[in-house]
Amino acid sequence: MTGSGGVDGRIPVAVLGATGSVGQRFVELLHNHPWFRLAEVCASERSAGRAYAEAARWMQASPLPEGVAEMVVGPSAPPLESRLVFSALDAGVAGPVEEAFARAGHLVVSNARNHRMDPRVPLLVPEVNPEHLALLEGQPWEGGIITNPNCSTIGLVLALKPLHDRFGVRSVRVVTMQAVSGAGIPGVSSMEILDNVIPFIGGEEEKLETEPLKILGTLGAEGVEPPDLRIWAQCNRVPVVDGHTACVWVGLERPATRETILEAWRDFSPAVAASGLPSAPSPTVVVLDGDASPQPRLHRELGKGMAASVGRLRPVKGGEFAFVTLSHNTIRGAAGGAILCAELAVDRGLVPGLARPGR
Amino acid sequence: MTGSGGVDGRIPVAVLGATGSVGQRFVELLHNHPWFRLAEVCASERSAGRAYAEAARWMQASPLPEGVAEMVVGPSAPPLESRLVFSALDAGVAGPVEEAFARAGHLVVSNARNHRMDPRVPLLVPEVNPEHLALLEGQPWEGGIITNPNCSTIGLVLALKPLHDRFGVRSVRVVTMQAVSGAGIPGVSSMEILDNVIPFIGGEEEKLETEPLKILGTLGAEGVEPPDLRIWAQCNRVPVVDGHTACVWVGLERPATRETILEAWRDFSPAVAASGLPSAPSPTVVVLDGDASPQPRLHRELGKGMAASVGRLRPVKGGEFAFVTLSHNTIRGAAGGAILCAELAVDRGLVPGLARPGR
Amino acid sequence: MTGSGGVDGRIPVAVLGATGSVGQRFVELLHNHPWFRLAEVCASERSAGRAYAEAARWMQASPLPEGVAEMVVGPSAPPLESRLVFSALDAGVAGPVEEAFARAGHLVVSNARNHRMDPRVPLLVPEVNPEHLALLEGQPWEGGIITNPNCSTIGLVLALKPLHDRFGVRSVRVVTMQAVSGAGIPGVSSMEILDNVIPFIGGEEEKLETEPLKILGTLGAEGVEPPDLRIWAQCNRVPVVDGHTACVWVGLERPATRETILEAWRDFSPAVAASGLPSAPSPTVVVLDGDASPQPRLHRELGKGMAASVGRLRPVKGGEFAFVTLSHNTIRGAAGGAILCAELAVDRGLVPGLARPGR
Amino acid sequence: MTGSGGVDGRIPVAVLGATGSVGQRFVELLHNHPWFRLAEVCASERSAGRAYAEAARWMQASPLPEGVAEMVVGPSAPPLESRLVFSALDAGVAGPVEEAFARAGHLVVSNARNHRMDPRVPLLVPEVNPEHLALLEGQPWEGGIITNPNCSTIGLVLALKPLHDRFGVRSVRVVTMQAVSGAGIPGVSSMEILDNVIPFIGGEEEKLETEPLKILGTLGAEGVEPPDLRIWAQCNRVPVVDGHTACVWVGLERPATRETILEAWRDFSPAVAASGLPSAPSPTVVVLDGDASPQPRLHRELGKGMAASVGRLRPVKGGEFAFVTLSHNTIRGAAGGAILCAELAVDRGLVPGLARPGR
Repeated sequence: MTGSGGVDGRIPVAVLGATGSVGQRFVELLHNHPWFRLAEVCASERSAGRAYAEAARWMQASPLPEGVAEMVVGPSAPPLESRLVFSALDAGVAGPVEEAFARAGHLVVSNARNHRMDPRVPLLVPEVNPEHLALLEGQPWEGGIITNPNCSTIGLVLALKPLHDRFGVRSVRVVTMQAVSGAGIPGVSSMEILDNVIPFIGGEEEKLETEPLKILGTLGAEGVEPPDLRIWAQCNRVPVVDGHTACVWVGLERPATRETILEAWRDFSPAVAASGLPSAPSPTVVVLDGDASPQPRLHRELGKGMAASVGRLRPVKGGEFAFVTLSHNTIRGAAGGAILCAELAVDRGLVPGLARPGR
Repeated sequence: MTGSGGVDGRIPVAVLGATGSVGQRFVELLHNHPWFRLAEVCASERSAGRAYAEAARWMQASPLPEGVAEMVVGPSAPPLESRLVFSALDAGVAGPVEEAFARAGHLVVSNARNHRMDPRVPLLVPEVNPEHLALLEGQPWEGGIITNPNCSTIGLVLALKPLHDRFGVRSVRVVTMQAVSGAGIPGVSSMEILDNVIPFIGGEEEKLETEPLKILGTLGAEGVEPPDLRIWAQCNRVPVVDGHTACVWVGLERPATRETILEAWRDFSPAVAASGLPSAPSPTVVVLDGDASPQPRLHRELGKGMAASVGRLRPVKGGEFAFVTLSHNTIRGAAGGAILCAELAVDRGLVPGLARPGR
Repeated sequence: MTGSGGVDGRIPVAVLGATGSVGQRFVELLHNHPWFRLAEVCASERSAGRAYAEAARWMQASPLPEGVAEMVVGPSAPPLESRLVFSALDAGVAGPVEEAFARAGHLVVSNARNHRMDPRVPLLVPEVNPEHLALLEGQPWEGGIITNPNCSTIGLVLALKPLHDRFGVRSVRVVTMQAVSGAGIPGVSSMEILDNVIPFIGGEEEKLETEPLKILGTLGAEGVEPPDLRIWAQCNRVPVVDGHTACVWVGLERPATRETILEAWRDFSPAVAASGLPSAPSPTVVVLDGDASPQPRLHRELGKGMAASVGRLRPVKGGEFAFVTLSHNTIRGAAGGAILCAELAVDRGLVPGLARPGR
Repeated sequence: MTGSGGVDGRIPVAVLGATGSVGQRFVELLHNHPWFRLAEVCASERSAGRAYAEAARWMQASPLPEGVAEMVVGPSAPPLESRLVFSALDAGVAGPVEEAFARAGHLVVSNARNHRMDPRVPLLVPEVNPEHLALLEGQPWEGGIITNPNCSTIGLVLALKPLHDRFGVRSVRVVTMQAVSGAGIPGVSSMEILDNVIPFIGGEEEKLETEPLKILGTLGAEGVEPPDLRIWAQCNRVPVVDGHTACVWVGLERPATRETILEAWRDFSPAVAASGLPSAPSPTVVVLDGDASPQPRLHRELGKGMAASVGRLRPVKGGEFAFVTLSHNTIRGAAGGAILCAELAVDRGLVPGLARPGR
């Protein structure tokens, strides 16, 4: 047995917090996943023992996958059969629960914010900082913890990375227009958002101003060293179901033109795109022509919801450019992004006992 | 002292459940009311003792009235200074609290459903069944209880009353498209209703099928006798902030034509419209021309949100007609409707110790 | 050569009116179709000669299929290479253009309303009235015309058919809540529909009251004989992107119960579902449990947008039941429905010179 | 006769382009105006001669004012009875028509963009640059032209003016989230904006980057001298009916703190606020507390839609602050703003033959 075993050769995985909004996306995206088999669904004590179809109010546009409806929800506590565990837990409980799993030998790939800025834990965007996975080796637990960034961080970082590599990003001003699905269910009340904009999302601006610095940082002996880069963010909620749009001004250190920036985006070919990870989009960054792109309803599904799209690039003044970027906040920005992190970890052989299927 | 006393000659009133969605509408509509002065705001124990501006997350489009922000929220329990008490309490607690107030000598005008079908309590639409106020005399409490119908009932009943008087309504089929404000705050999640219709509202169809029978009923020695009328309802939630729209088929007993029905609506002049109640709209029923009326965004404010509008009347088959009706669910269908009930009770001298100001 | 020829063994097809809203759905759904290859895109004179990507403002959530962007738009006039022609033309021009194509020997499958009630032309829902295809034989043209019903008709008819077969449908009252995509682009102004309901859609009620009678009719020597059935409709536009929801009361001739009706829907297995037509959904009618289903955002994609979903079935009075039905108006109700009609015609060998690929 | 004559002592005024979206707002706001009486409604040749109720598809939430419905629409050409003429004409025709009126001796107050950057014409925000009215004297026409800025400019300029006076504004970065009403009717298609954001509005960024420089400029012998200030704008359309929200970063020349900025806004008391112009809001700038203000649905009606509201002020780095501002785009940003301009001109006696009523 290779260790990646399971009934059909796929790696068994568990989802913690499986009944919530992000948890449901994990369930949806893991259905028919070529490497992973959803073996366990876990939630709070209140849901434990009930069938998944009863415990979760399914709110996805695709039907609840067959076979999942009858799965009995377990408690979000170790041990589990699955070595690989996805966490869609609320930040209110995620911290100690995830550490308990890590101590018990599980690899936890978490969408919660609790360990994102922990210096021992990689804050991972596989196309951007795959080398940060090396932090796993220094973790004090038998298993490990990998975190996925905030939903608005990911799209921004994917758009910035090719520019940072080639021109050096020094300053970023970003105004987001974020979808309601980012707040989960019930999340944003319809009375708050119909015919409205809410110019505030608790804690979001702080995340967007700090997480990219860790992701774009350099891994050294002392851990991750952030780049010389400042970000200022203003975050808004808008009446959109899925897809976070961001208006960005980026200041660059080295000379750039509209053409060289477009080229940098189009040429961006991170290693993961080439290594056949099932959830890696290609291209990673989709450059859209036309006056009025990207738009959430039209472009959020690009790359099966895993790509970042960019458009409206225009020079502003010396060394500064404006553009618009968009990504799917509950696919790329949550469950899909975390699954890609897990794919990378398995591919790199960093999960003891779990080998990439088919190799 | 006239009994209608108070610092400025207006009648002091209290609002129970003043911090919620309907409670806020009471606060908004009582501001600058010519007869009533908002003297007390009451809410749950959790809010009691805090300033209103802190306890309530104000969600109305008009600013929080001056003078109200600093009012200290009291508990929703008797005794209060105000003889006249409006109840915007949740149905989960309204029943016993309202009876306690009635026992303590207060006249409670309630928007909660708890006492609506109580045979001792008038379910009042002042333009439709003002004579039902006589039920107050037989109530076992020192004070009394009046109830305001469900938000979707009121608009329907206002449209039906002129037809019932003149032609005899025998059957009604109604499909509603209801605004999210009817569910309060947080109420309907944005994830449930953006780009969506929810074809179900818990308990709503039952209310719409039974409440109109009591309102259109005849007050006799045995209480209210319902008419020979059947209603079938299907209720939907739609992404609209305010205003319930209903598609109706009505079956009539006596011969009618498009013209005589329009005439019945236009001629409808209930006594309250003539007696100068401050919140009574004139006309009560607004007949709209044009292919595509009424519409919630365009017509919900007619009569300051107190009128019912009707349109698209067309004959269907012998004795049956189709039409569309609309009313403002949180003004006419909740706080505004209850205030009009109180105005009628004061005007008729049915509140011991309280006289109509200016008489 | 089999006649179904073409570069890759698939049947070449053309789309008339390919740049509009329904035309774009044809382009999207024909991409990677197993039997049909999009060979020609045609539009008005104004667009002819331009590349498709320029002539059409692509508004679908999936990317414009590769290979289509550069296709040169041709005029919507015969002759064309493709024997099979889909018409997404506006009703203002569709009538004579479609007849010109039929005279020139093409089989036209049309989504326009012009020939729907023409007694010589089948108004086809492949799961409901496949035998009506026989009308093709009596048509006066060398080619032929098949029509696809109105977008709100299709969902209703799919839900009614199993009940009609088993219990005899005698009366239908239906109130629709229709998506804006049904009106095309620009179609409904955002100023008309944000925070609003429009209780009127021009011509829609008439279509919904007459088209089902033809579809459910019996093909005899004299043409299609309608059943003894009356329909009354009220049609509304709501702020939903895709998916028409309908609240229905149906009167049945023969005894039925909630259980036997659910059984009729679940057992409905039309011949096309078994015969392997690529676009035929299975099941045709999806019975949804739960209080609040179907909902457009959650259920419009069922069966890849080709199924009708039903829910909330409840008895109303003797022989009458209420339920809610939903279908995707631009897939099942337009382009997808027409493609299924074409698949049926090819499968039945009714298109001279075109054989089902792979046979 | 005082010259301000008319049947009731009010000044007769005309509206050009009265049937469109902005024109309707003029009609609504001029109803019951204390100084102005709507005497003439004018539109295109196509509408001329028809009753206003027929020619205009009334889309306002308030009912069409009585007396206006029957007014016969005239052509948008001089001469008119009214000396004072409001222009809600489309930019496609406004230029020469407005000049023709000016030549014919009328004072035109225009909401069209055509003459905004004309150095002879004041681009007027009465609270900000009333002294620019002096440009009227140098105009070559017998009458004159005053222009009202773009809808997104006005809110921004009102928020900037107190800061510019006290601290010197040197740089502005602004991202707008604009309501659909700004595009008129039909304007933005519902298919474009439901569940969506459009990150582009044609010509809007240019207006927002240039108009404030003229408004905040100094009137000298050579005309208006712009300040040393740069603006960069990114403009988005969002699914909101009314109210433009903007996220702003402002760079200041002189030292400021959060407190001194709030003080500058609160102390802002322009002359017009004191001089009793009927449409001047007080305060001009409403400073909102709370984490999540301003919001279009809650705050657009402040000051009867004429105030700018600001909130979320926070320091960013040395000399730079972030904040959010909001104003009502079809009241303050269009018809209401133009009416206030006219009030100022009449008050200053700059319209020959027209005196402020009641003086």
